[in-house]
Amino acid sequence: MEENKGNEKGQFRRFDRGQDRDRGGDRFGGPRDRFGGQRSPFKKGPTKRERIFAEMKQKMKTAYLSRDAVLVYIDGMIGDLEKALNLLFERLNEWYSIYFPELKVLDRSKYCKLVIAINKEDMEGTKARVKEVAGDKADEILKQLETSIGIELLGKDIQKIQETAEKILELERLKEEIEKYEEGVAREVCPNLAEVGGPKIAAKLIAHVGGLQKLAKLPASTIQVLGAEKALFRHLKKNTKPPKHGLIFQHTAVHSAPKDVRGRIARAIATKLSIAAKVDAYGKRFLGKEMKEKLDAKIKDILSKSAKPAQAPVTA
Amino acid sequence: MEENKGNEKGQFRRFDRGQDRDRGGDRFGGPRDRFGGQRSPFKKGPTKRERIFAEMKQKMKTAYLSRDAVLVYIDGMIGDLEKALNLLFERLNEWYSIYFPELKVLDRSKYCKLVIAINKEDMEGTKARVKEVAGDKADEILKQLETSIGIELLGKDIQKIQETAEKILELERLKEEIEKYEEGVAREVCPNLAEVGGPKIAAKLIAHVGGLQKLAKLPASTIQVLGAEKALFRHLKKNTKPPKHGLIFQHTAVHSAPKDVRGRIARAIATKLSIAAKVDAYGKRFLGKEMKEKLDAKIKDILSKSAKPAQAPVTA
Repeated sequence: MEENKGNEKGQFRRFDRGQDRDRGGDRFGGPRDRFGGQRSPFKKGPTKRERIFAEMKQKMKTAYLSRDAVLVYIDGMIGDLEKALNLLFERLNEWYSIYFPELKVLDRSKYCKLVIAINKEDMEGTKARVKEVAGDKADEILKQLETSIGIELLGKDIQKIQETAEKILELERLKEEIEKYEEGVAREVCPNLAEVGGPKIAAKLIAHVGGLQKLAKLPASTIQVLGAEKALFRHLKKNTKPPKHGLIFQHTAVHSAPKDVRGRIARAIATKLSIAAKVDAYGKRFLGKEMKEKLDAKIKDILSKSAKPAQAPVTA
Repeated sequence: MEENKGNEKGQFRRFDRGQDRDRGGDRFGGPRDRFGGQRSPFKKGPTKRERIFAEMKQKMKTAYLSRDAVLVYIDGMIGDLEKALNLLFERLNEWYSIYFPELKVLDRSKYCKLVIAINKEDMEGTKARVKEVAGDKADEILKQLETSIGIELLGKDIQKIQETAEKILELERLKEEIEKYEEGVAREVCPNLAEVGGPKIAAKLIAHVGGLQKLAKLPASTIQVLGAEKALFRHLKKNTKPPKHGLIFQHTAVHSAPKDVRGRIARAIATKLSIAAKVDAYGKRFLGKEMKEKLDAKIKDILSKSAKPAQAPVTA
């Protein structure tokens, strides 16, 4: 009790936010002084402290979030949408395979559309709808449906499955929309980076490190393996082979290239991306076109030295 | 090469399904004999093997899936919907708190509705919409919105957030619908179990063990701790306290009871559920009403012996 004396006299009040609130004080400068002290009877209006707080609050309110930070949130949302879609689609697949186990379509949207189209009790309508969705493959699917060993389900079961498929389709559409939006924001935030590596990779790189400024400070060798941290640290610790590419692998020039030159192409791209990120972060100029041309020439040069032919025409 | 001779002569063909398919054979008895053997020139029409296969296939096609197996699928879907909703809602929350960090509403649907309702640029409309959604709490939320330290976002950002919130709301609705459907199926599959423990718990118990027949074979003591396997095995291995209830905890009579009698109430319910499951699986009669009455009397008796008062009126 003796030790608490200071507190009772109000000496430590400065640190006691709880007490402060109890007296009706506002953290950001309400009607009372935050420290609970007596205000000078000669002064009227807000104290200096109150004025500063009010000003800061106003500034924070009107400040727009820097656009590259928005990218981080958008990318997180896309990642979670993908996870949720996977989860629900797998479950739908499992559920529907009692009814039509032969249906094997890897494309999620197409599968869901087929689930909605197919109804064993209305074969005529099913035929028309399946043809609309599957095109050339329709005949194959319809043949499978006729000889299917799937078990009958009640109409109301099918209905619930179809409703779920519809929701999955809608989520898929939302994901696509947000992806498009992400690309738009990327073109706005980092035009050079988006031009050189494509808006998708640009957005993912920025989201991965948490901001354009941070990305601009990274050397090309780090950018090359961003997203392959696991393999990188395994290499450093256990002396396995180092990763050749991380997020950059999604670049068409990398994953369509023959395996023996992928590492070199990834390095070339990472080098240009690193320069582009610096231009975007610290300059205002648009040098994307030139950089892209130089990069394409470089990639062509590397590809011509490969032992194997490319798997697809290289257009990034 | 020498060792492969047998294969070349076709001696192992019986096990080579891939080859079989290449020759146009059908696994379930197509136009050719499955083993690729020559058919007797004197016999016409399908072989005995083919006839049996066709018959079995027909039987499988017309057999309805037993309704309790459907419950397992439905419950799995509900679980995955819940997981997906959690994932997306958390991300939405994180994203939206840049804009309006003071909004703290635990109910997912309400939060999403508020996200859709609020627009800082149209305060008049916002007021009306928030009042519609939040009712009594509207004033508090609007006051928070006015003094919010949230950062401005571009209109198109807000729009994407609102679209996501809408999709989450729709998923939530789908989940509710499927839950209702599950309860309906439960009442149909196991009327006694559904009457005694409520359709939700009945469905979850059946889904947990994988079928009504399996549940009917379990003793009451096992039913009591279904869903608390982790705690049970910890008890058996490390001698910690045994669990008092698993899935049954969701029964109103259990979780609203004072802690000191919860175990006894759980045991009483499990006993009756075990009997109800047996009646549903092996009998056709509906004894649910009587069992429920007896159970309620028993619970009342146990409650009257508790040292503490119940937290809520006990109605299951």
